[in-house]
Amino acid sequence: MTAPVFAFTVTHTDPQSRARAGLLTTPHGTIETPAFCPVATQATVKALTPDDVRAIGVQMVLANTYHLYLRPGADLIARLGGLHRFMAWDRPIMTDSGGFQVFSLGFGIEHGVGKIASIFPAEEANDAAERVPARPSRSSSEGRLVRIDEDGVTFTSHIDGSSQRLTPETSIHAQELLGADCILAFDECTSPLNDEAYTRRALERTHRWALRCLEAKTRNDQALFGIVQGGHYQELREASARFIGGLPFWGLAVGGDLGRSKADMHRILDWVIPLLPAEKPRHLLGIGMPEDLADAVLRGIDTFDCAAPTRMARNGTLFTRSGRLNILNARYTADPGPVEEGCPCQTCTHFSRAYLRHLFKADELLAPRLATVHNLQFMADLMRDIRQAVIEGNLRALRAELLARFAGHR
Amino acid sequence: MTAPVFAFTVTHTDPQSRARAGLLTTPHGTIETPAFCPVATQATVKALTPDDVRAIGVQMVLANTYHLYLRPGADLIARLGGLHRFMAWDRPIMTDSGGFQVFSLGFGIEHGVGKIASIFPAEEANDAAERVPARPSRSSSEGRLVRIDEDGVTFTSHIDGSSQRLTPETSIHAQELLGADCILAFDECTSPLNDEAYTRRALERTHRWALRCLEAKTRNDQALFGIVQGGHYQELREASARFIGGLPFWGLAVGGDLGRSKADMHRILDWVIPLLPAEKPRHLLGIGMPEDLADAVLRGIDTFDCAAPTRMARNGTLFTRSGRLNILNARYTADPGPVEEGCPCQTCTHFSRAYLRHLFKADELLAPRLATVHNLQFMADLMRDIRQAVIEGNLRALRAELLARFAGHR
Repeated sequence: MTAPVFAFTVTHTDPQSRARAGLLTTPHGTIETPAFCPVATQATVKALTPDDVRAIGVQMVLANTYHLYLRPGADLIARLGGLHRFMAWDRPIMTDSGGFQVFSLGFGIEHGVGKIASIFPAEEANDAAERVPARPSRSSSEGRLVRIDEDGVTFTSHIDGSSQRLTPETSIHAQELLGADCILAFDECTSPLNDEAYTRRALERTHRWALRCLEAKTRNDQALFGIVQGGHYQELREASARFIGGLPFWGLAVGGDLGRSKADMHRILDWVIPLLPAEKPRHLLGIGMPEDLADAVLRGIDTFDCAAPTRMARNGTLFTRSGRLNILNARYTADPGPVEEGCPCQTCTHFSRAYLRHLFKADELLAPRLATVHNLQFMADLMRDIRQAVIEGNLRALRAELLARFAGHR
Repeated sequence: MTAPVFAFTVTHTDPQSRARAGLLTTPHGTIETPAFCPVATQATVKALTPDDVRAIGVQMVLANTYHLYLRPGADLIARLGGLHRFMAWDRPIMTDSGGFQVFSLGFGIEHGVGKIASIFPAEEANDAAERVPARPSRSSSEGRLVRIDEDGVTFTSHIDGSSQRLTPETSIHAQELLGADCILAFDECTSPLNDEAYTRRALERTHRWALRCLEAKTRNDQALFGIVQGGHYQELREASARFIGGLPFWGLAVGGDLGRSKADMHRILDWVIPLLPAEKPRHLLGIGMPEDLADAVLRGIDTFDCAAPTRMARNGTLFTRSGRLNILNARYTADPGPVEEGCPCQTCTHFSRAYLRHLFKADELLAPRLATVHNLQFMADLMRDIRQAVIEGNLRALRAELLARFAGHR
């Protein structure tokens, strides 16, 4: 058996920005970047089969080590042939390390904040709620749900309340059992509410954990991504970009607290990206609303994951080129048109807005499915447009057009 | 435009029983009978798209006038081009008249009984719970939810508590607005707990309503089925079979109270079927567990509808040739095999029992979908076997084999 092939090739760069188009090759296929990865938190893109997801043109999905470690167990999935076989998805998979849950189950749940503080409405916060399990029934007065020490993290399972532990070594081991193509270092994801002193201590620990993750990795058919942390503090972000960027990670991710606004997020990307080695792919963790993509690609991001497009679909919020629509709105009661004219998805080519609204009103299982198909098709098509714009050198023009479009929320 | 074609041709008869195979032609295609029709209560086979349903080999689905009349409204569906277009299903549809809800919302909910009394566990009662909306929140002490008079039925909407009314004329009108291929007369479906005197009065009213339904019908591209009632009383069933069988209905259905056991149901079919004109198709309303099909076909039934196979799927009960299995059972935790070896469905060809169990445990939307696909494939394949056995003259042997199989519930 020849060694599994991993390669990242930048094929086009935008002379006016850090945007680039490329090809990311993994043992399960090549991803055209920039690319949006839907979440398959519990080894399924909610409501969809792998055939549905393939038909949309999705190239990679992101599954969650935290969830799968707790249920059904990474060892069980390994016995069943690994995550690709378990979920019958033969294209690339990325797994999250579980580090985000340290944040979301601990500080995040206790303080009610997401990746970009709490200034956005919860649904729009890009905070990857599919990674944030429902709040456990025990009250916070029973003590913090997460305890972090130098070695790792002890946390309470959201499923059965049992005490669980993840360390850099056990996270990498679990991710090796799952067998995704791209895996992530185990990190501590600090909150926008953490002060600089705490964020610095957490960052230093995350950097020590990054070294342990590199050490713990044994499989040669998986690519390990390091995660740049440092919150919204410029000095810390730059230090992290230099440190993580200098380690032998195959790819790099930007994670954690991205400030209090989209402008903050853009500023953080502008601090970090120039310090990362240009030849490695760059993933932006947990971000990916339609209006975010072009801005982050302009700043040098290659891949994205985000739960919001699918979660919003399940709530009846649908993306269109002229903005979002809430299909539950009475104005769609008798609307014979598709969600979006010209959209090639299974939903728009078969069903009217009136029918989709009926399904939502009647609480039918087909409703979240059809809505998810549409929003993921929208994301895939939008990303294809963005990639094409990078190749043709007119991403700035497309960005302006997109901003004008998405300004209109119907 | 040429007149829409309706035809029912018996192509094979079993010399040893009343079983027959045939072709039922409607404006939306020809159904090979005997056939099982999944329910699409609210204009969707729960969790499935029309493409999924077609891929399974389903020939006709049954939608519910009661539900669609209340939400989104038959008039709205008519404005949107009718039910076929609304739900994007281009094959035959049958609509229930709403009469069953008179029973299920009234006596049924008040007394907690189904089509075959309450001696079966609720899930197995064939009682078409998808036709029985959730019990309204108002208590029964506020008065009966249904009032029947000579002209029709006044009932309380399960959606908003509003007072609603259906009569033979409004039911037929609603069904004409929906535009199904096969429509049903508006009847009163009595309960196994009704005495003979009440059942007789109700039957006489149902017979008067049958005449009004024939009178009310205006479209020539729909086939109207009369419904034989009479509860578990032989004299009444025979009188109803003669009366309804003698009217110019295009097809015939057996509805209502079918006694207290499957043996009672068989006895009732043996009273009724010989009295019906042989040239008309015969539908058995709300019945269709795997173990019921051969017995009813042997007694002369051509088509079935039943909510149980899909409802049970959503609860994790899966049909196999060696009996049912509950996928939530711990024994399937690490089972790498499909639900049923050799099953051609999308679920069995892609996913393991272990994965399906995981989806159910994790409360994933894909779980009810994959389970529904399997159970409907099972029903379609079983019915195809039964049809073939009728054609080959060995249905009795198949029935014995099926009974032995289904005796084993795992």
